[in-house]
Amino acid sequence: MLKNRRVVLKSRPVGIPQAEHFEIQSTDVPEPGPGQFLVKNLYLSVDPAMRGWVNAAANYSKPVQIGEVMRSFAAGRVLRSNDPKYPEGTLVMGMLGWQEYAVTDAGAIRRTIRETDLPVSLSLGVLGLNGLTAYFGLSTIGQPQAGETVVVSTAAGAVGSIVGQLARRQGCRTVGIAGGATKVRMCLEEFGYDAAIDYREPGLEDALREACPNGVDVYFDNTSGPISDTVIRYINTRARIVICGTASIPSWEPWPDGPRVDRHLLTKRATMTGFLAFDHEHRYDEAVSHLADMIRKGELRYREEILDGLEAAPGSIADLYAGKNLGKRLIRLAHE
Amino acid sequence: MLKNRRVVLKSRPVGIPQAEHFEIQSTDVPEPGPGQFLVKNLYLSVDPAMRGWVNAAANYSKPVQIGEVMRSFAAGRVLRSNDPKYPEGTLVMGMLGWQEYAVTDAGAIRRTIRETDLPVSLSLGVLGLNGLTAYFGLSTIGQPQAGETVVVSTAAGAVGSIVGQLARRQGCRTVGIAGGATKVRMCLEEFGYDAAIDYREPGLEDALREACPNGVDVYFDNTSGPISDTVIRYINTRARIVICGTASIPSWEPWPDGPRVDRHLLTKRATMTGFLAFDHEHRYDEAVSHLADMIRKGELRYREEILDGLEAAPGSIADLYAGKNLGKRLIRLAHE
Repeated sequence: MLKNRRVVLKSRPVGIPQAEHFEIQSTDVPEPGPGQFLVKNLYLSVDPAMRGWVNAAANYSKPVQIGEVMRSFAAGRVLRSNDPKYPEGTLVMGMLGWQEYAVTDAGAIRRTIRETDLPVSLSLGVLGLNGLTAYFGLSTIGQPQAGETVVVSTAAGAVGSIVGQLARRQGCRTVGIAGGATKVRMCLEEFGYDAAIDYREPGLEDALREACPNGVDVYFDNTSGPISDTVIRYINTRARIVICGTASIPSWEPWPDGPRVDRHLLTKRATMTGFLAFDHEHRYDEAVSHLADMIRKGELRYREEILDGLEAAPGSIADLYAGKNLGKRLIRLAHE
Repeated sequence: MLKNRRVVLKSRPVGIPQAEHFEIQSTDVPEPGPGQFLVKNLYLSVDPAMRGWVNAAANYSKPVQIGEVMRSFAAGRVLRSNDPKYPEGTLVMGMLGWQEYAVTDAGAIRRTIRETDLPVSLSLGVLGLNGLTAYFGLSTIGQPQAGETVVVSTAAGAVGSIVGQLARRQGCRTVGIAGGATKVRMCLEEFGYDAAIDYREPGLEDALREACPNGVDVYFDNTSGPISDTVIRYINTRARIVICGTASIPSWEPWPDGPRVDRHLLTKRATMTGFLAFDHEHRYDEAVSHLADMIRKGELRYREEILDGLEAAPGSIADLYAGKNLGKRLIRLAHE
């Protein structure tokens, strides 16, 4: 019988999950029941959103329970199937969890991977949640117009780097904010930002003012906290602020204080909108097809940071919040 | 020669303007030049927004300068005219200032008052900035759907009372928040709210939870501060928060701190949008016609609080922030 190794939640973190909150268990792989199928995971995803999934607070999804397999996106191949829509050999991406094998049904699958000319790992990054988040957050809320200025925080990250490239392609001036000289260089040299700012250096506000001589029309934020507090002061009338993540705030229980933004939103007639790519699932194929075409034409660059083996998973979230990763972080379990 | 008495800004307030920041001067009324016309003001408006107009900070309009006539809406009748579009006898509403007579051109006029079957004073309240703010803020940002819950702060006020009635007409459950037993009674008995809460009593959060068993879909806010901090915790997924005013915060230099809202907007995929009726000027006639028809049919109730004489103007703004007025505050200079 096939053995499955899986990462389960051992204790509930407050704030950022660390390696010690998880443990690796070994179990038998059950046979898929009626309508179910067995997937061999090839890549597991590591995403900042996973912090929210294990925190106890009411969130946009039910928290992972102690003893449960860590919820995650994963990409894999169907090995055995009782669902004719997912025959053996199909590549799928979905909520398959941090484990080597998943017995599941169609409900967990986000999409079938049809762009088999491209690496399957992309389905978890630039063609996965990250790309979809960038695509839908920017197009439905940011709504950038040619000539506008778009500021992106975590600008070299898996989402931010795509936002910057999509906005630039639409004729916007793009300004990236990232932590450290390496990421600033990536912003300028790999991701084509018109300007990039290292928020760890002093003088963020001066640098921002200089980089945005015409103010800020779209702010795509993944940080909250002091970076946002600075950027919001430079928004233009009718600016759109996309709230995509809050990486700089370690805990939201209780909600931390910061400058009240409502009067500024009022005088600027600006809007601040929270956003989750999940809400656009009915349009995933459209977005993937658009992004995959850009990749094939060499118009969209991305970075992956691949860790090998299930043992790398438990400690892999904390690094994201420390800003240690360069590119979309993945766990590789097997080669295609 | 006609004498004009006018209220000018004497010194710049920080926070809420008081009587001592103004003085009344007497001057000659000049003859209207080419393209100009002379308006005799009948009613002057007193609006919370006037605080922003005299504060030095960059705002949505240039601050009133020391020695200038206090900017305000007013309604009056054209006495002499060199503009054929505004012949003698026309009733107009516009930025005519806190003064008895205004020599102006078409640029200052917001609209011609055509609903002459209704009192001219309404053009400064329910058919003026207040009604337009309620109408456009609710319809363009709030977008209430039948069955949704709409919460309104300053619910018995000149804007809030109209928001509540418009939302209820659209089939929403309406919940008003107001200060004191008198205003709560007005909310329930005059403005038809389904529930009303006195925020000055202890237990705002419990009262809100009880009044909104299905959560909050639209929050129309005129307060900022602690009332908003409470309401926002009860918003539903995809809630719309209309930022219309910030009456509970006396000064925004520097921006005061409050709970950071971005993570909550994110998990709720909610939106918070600042709003000014001025941006919808091209649709004023449509809104006035809609609201005037409701008034004629007895479907829209309003309150006015009329003070007599120019001397009442300088001290009239501070009272608004103390919550002392019951109804739209106006200064009457002459009877129609």
